[in-house]
Amino acid sequence: MNENCIFCKIVAGDVPSQQFYQDELVTAFQDISAQAPVHVLIVPNQHFNDLGEMGDAQAKILGRIVQVAGQLAASEGIASEGWRLVTNIGKHGGQEVFHTHFHLLGGRPLGPLLAR
Amino acid sequence: MNENCIFCKIVAGDVPSQQFYQDELVTAFQDISAQAPVHVLIVPNQHFNDLGEMGDAQAKILGRIVQVAGQLAASEGIASEGWRLVTNIGKHGGQEVFHTHFHLLGGRPLGPLLAR
Repeated sequence: MNENCIFCKIVAGDVPSQQFYQDELVTAFQDISAQAPVHVLIVPNQHFNDLGEMGDAQAKILGRIVQVAGQLAASEGIASEGWRLVTNIGKHGGQEVFHTHFHLLGGRPLGPLLAR
Repeated sequence: MNENCIFCKIVAGDVPSQQFYQDELVTAFQDISAQAPVHVLIVPNQHFNDLGEMGDAQAKILGRIVQVAGQLAASEGIASEGWRLVTNIGKHGGQEVFHTHFHLLGGRPLGPLLAR
């Protein structure tokens, strides 16, 4: 746990969140600045600054993130219409919290891959 | 291999691509409709229609995708400035090819998470 990290505090339950899922590897909770009808953040419980710090050695965590994303897409009723999974790294990515997080987005047509 | 899938054909080398990386699990190649200075697609060699078909059982593949994304971000010179990894699922996601693929994007500020 990183003592200065808001997502570490959410994982630990020290900061409240609208939690969708938690297990020994990952936690999923509502994005407080939702940009789509479904906007859930899925994070590893362990602190990594960004995805660039993860890889083969974190395969189990990454697999679990994707499994949970698929489960939440189904339980939130967006699996058939479609969804998007995004993670931002660093300045050009627009990363705002430096604890790896995947945005699960859906509930409406999400538009092009990038804003023009 | 899905005989009707263009990405399966690219993985097999039956359709040419500008290949960045290939191993026993994943293949990375240039997006022919690049939307950023760096726009690489990273795909599992095995055919899955979309990420919703993948999860814990594909953890090794997913870990490798992320490892390769980080390696390519470094080798393409965008690791420090930042990048984005995106996968689209279905209609609302805007998925166009139904073989799981992750967009590695970078080389410029990528703008907001979603187009407004």
